[in-house]
Amino acid sequence: MDVEVKKILVNTKEYANKLVKIKGWIRNNRSQKEFGFIDLNDGTAFESIQIVYEDKVLDNFKEVAKYNVGSAISVEGKVVLTPKMKQPFEIKAEEIILEGNSLEDYPIQPKRHSREFLRENAHFRSRTNLFNAVFRVRSVISFAIHKFFQERNFIYLHSPLITANDAEGAGELFQVSTLDSEKPEKDFVNDFFGKKTNLSVTGQLQAEAFALAFKKVYTFGPTFRAEKSNTTRHASEFWMIEPEVAFFDLQDNMDLAEEMVKYVIDEVFKNCQSELQFFNKFVEKGLIEKLKNVQNKTFIRITYKKALEILTKHNNKFTIKAVDGNDLATEHEKYLTKHYGGPVFVTDWPKNLKAFYMRLNDDKETVAAMDLLVPLAGELIGGSQREERLDCLESRMRKMNVSDQDLWWYKDLRKYGGNKHSGYGLGLERMIMYVTGVDNIRDVIPFPRTPKHCEF
Amino acid sequence: MDVEVKKILVNTKEYANKLVKIKGWIRNNRSQKEFGFIDLNDGTAFESIQIVYEDKVLDNFKEVAKYNVGSAISVEGKVVLTPKMKQPFEIKAEEIILEGNSLEDYPIQPKRHSREFLRENAHFRSRTNLFNAVFRVRSVISFAIHKFFQERNFIYLHSPLITANDAEGAGELFQVSTLDSEKPEKDFVNDFFGKKTNLSVTGQLQAEAFALAFKKVYTFGPTFRAEKSNTTRHASEFWMIEPEVAFFDLQDNMDLAEEMVKYVIDEVFKNCQSELQFFNKFVEKGLIEKLKNVQNKTFIRITYKKALEILTKHNNKFTIKAVDGNDLATEHEKYLTKHYGGPVFVTDWPKNLKAFYMRLNDDKETVAAMDLLVPLAGELIGGSQREERLDCLESRMRKMNVSDQDLWWYKDLRKYGGNKHSGYGLGLERMIMYVTGVDNIRDVIPFPRTPKHCEF
Repeated sequence: MDVEVKKILVNTKEYANKLVKIKGWIRNNRSQKEFGFIDLNDGTAFESIQIVYEDKVLDNFKEVAKYNVGSAISVEGKVVLTPKMKQPFEIKAEEIILEGNSLEDYPIQPKRHSREFLRENAHFRSRTNLFNAVFRVRSVISFAIHKFFQERNFIYLHSPLITANDAEGAGELFQVSTLDSEKPEKDFVNDFFGKKTNLSVTGQLQAEAFALAFKKVYTFGPTFRAEKSNTTRHASEFWMIEPEVAFFDLQDNMDLAEEMVKYVIDEVFKNCQSELQFFNKFVEKGLIEKLKNVQNKTFIRITYKKALEILTKHNNKFTIKAVDGNDLATEHEKYLTKHYGGPVFVTDWPKNLKAFYMRLNDDKETVAAMDLLVPLAGELIGGSQREERLDCLESRMRKMNVSDQDLWWYKDLRKYGGNKHSGYGLGLERMIMYVTGVDNIRDVIPFPRTPKHCEF
Repeated sequence: MDVEVKKILVNTKEYANKLVKIKGWIRNNRSQKEFGFIDLNDGTAFESIQIVYEDKVLDNFKEVAKYNVGSAISVEGKVVLTPKMKQPFEIKAEEIILEGNSLEDYPIQPKRHSREFLRENAHFRSRTNLFNAVFRVRSVISFAIHKFFQERNFIYLHSPLITANDAEGAGELFQVSTLDSEKPEKDFVNDFFGKKTNLSVTGQLQAEAFALAFKKVYTFGPTFRAEKSNTTRHASEFWMIEPEVAFFDLQDNMDLAEEMVKYVIDEVFKNCQSELQFFNKFVEKGLIEKLKNVQNKTFIRITYKKALEILTKHNNKFTIKAVDGNDLATEHEKYLTKHYGGPVFVTDWPKNLKAFYMRLNDDKETVAAMDLLVPLAGELIGGSQREERLDCLESRMRKMNVSDQDLWWYKDLRKYGGNKHSGYGLGLERMIMYVTGVDNIRDVIPFPRTPKHCEF
């Protein structure tokens, strides 16, 4: 029977001196005259396992000794405990079979590769320690988010990706079309949907419709931005989680966000110990302490006004000066989390800085918005109570030049039982970057899309 | 404290005679002179709850009596057990507050609406019994699929949605572009990605790259088809689950698919009893029996050749005659499942009927493909062992006119440790239609996209 390395790692003692069959890929192969060592990774665990093979045992010793890095093999052998070594066991091979040969010029040799090089080899980079760990954590975080909401009886909905709305009214959009690009076209009546369509920048508006039927809902899906900015924090295609809850106000909304962030970190601690140790050692020193600090802190809640009071007092420290009415710069966000020694919600932002659907406060100047800032990374979550009053919503749409042609249904939600509701958006990649310490968004997406880059 | 209806339904006795506060939407409101009844649904459960309100208790009895259907209210009252009635309890209201008013012309009145009408009101249709049930089951199935794979140590990966590949070589594609549509453009060098890009029809190819690093992986994401076919089984945007496992052959692949289908049905039975009863009564008579039959049967496995033997013998029964070398028609699929009285895998299809990446069998005429056919619905899953031999793959790509310009990395996977591997695709909507009995794909997608339809 084939056994996964993960299972042997979890129940090492049970497998001691047992014969097992493992299938995986060679990370390294060092042979001497009469014996050799293979580092084998089978993908089920972060750890690679040492295979010891000997000429006196294997008929095909000479061939095995020449197996290239990257080759797939099947190994039958005995589990030998190695309490003094880094890995708790090794496998003494009795049979090794080549399952898939690798050529000598395999790009992922057992040495240090630059992240740029690995990006160009994204089809192979999951076979390195770093990306094996990153994408396992990505999977664990994704499932943790689903678990968190499902355990709380939320309904998972799939918001549409192709849309005629421009919900945020911000940023450039990818057009979606089946028209012949060689022919100029002004009118989209002949296009697939009979109108101009684009890729969605948010699933929130449709999630609101569902929240006003199911009370507690969330989306988990891709979103798209056609911004030509080449930064380490922006990708053209990324994944968002957008919970939306009827009868929730801004405070409830923050409670939920705080609980979710702590839950996700908790699940990573439970499921990815080896990965966290690796990140802590090689990617971001102090990572584990940073995450524990988030878990243990009650998140601070301050208004934008209060934030500005603090920041303007220390304007001498900033390259970009903090100015009342302006958005916060990354350095301001970092300052605030440092000032409070932990995560900080900033609430009640000037309405001009935020989207049309956020609820106007009684002061008529600010909206019931919240941004969650976390130490070292800045903004992780953005959300708000939604404007449920039709007249306020329409007035904001007019002022912000949001066309209501395709949003008749969104206004309908306010006419027919449109009560208080709130929600937020979490960028999945932001969360992964925060938890792993990896500082480039291209390195936490399996096959990233950025301006001029659409390989794989 | 607000209480969810779901919680009271699960622990009814605990709440007996207790004071609770419930928030939800009015499905119906019938008032007489001194008392009235509201059917309230709070979205957390399929069941609506009866609220009894009386003039002698409420200060605002006259207003409450006039609350329109669709309005959001908050009700404080006592839980009274009603063992003789359909619902196990009702609420005797002590206070009712209007949280969100609904106008009188609210489209979802307490009467039968056609599915066409509800599609035009997709922003409200989740507030009906049918769609409340459908989209709850959609959520439960989605999570069940995640659970199934995560419990088995699979890695969830997000395959890219924007791509330069046309993986299946089949069907029309949606182009993705930021070019000005009013100007003709032959060359995509100035487009966002510097080349022609489209929306992906499958995440499988990238999943293969991950499977050859992590062994067991799955995708769960949207896919897109720009086919102008207006059938009840096709949408332009739908969700797919694509597991891919290294070292798996076609038999292992079928084992996994069978286990998954049974697991998902099991989870729906565990979590959606009321919904299933509703579907069984009002949507598809015999649904529950059909699903139990799938759970209890070992799925039959026959070759395409064997299937044709059976079908050609009964060609007098078919509108489209079964012909060796042709694809199976829906009536053939249904005949086979009826013939065997349960789900049937059909394997080893003529190579010309299947995609380039499927593994050529030793007969050089068939490929190691499998389709899972289920009673009444036909094809639910399609999969195959993948061609891991570079020369065979290249020859198939040439013969099927698959451009390899953007698939260099896919061929690389065969050069460097490309071992045996297999996978399949499950259309989420197909599964939901099968489990709910709903026969139009537009009615199992929150906001469906089909030719000429991109509302909401």
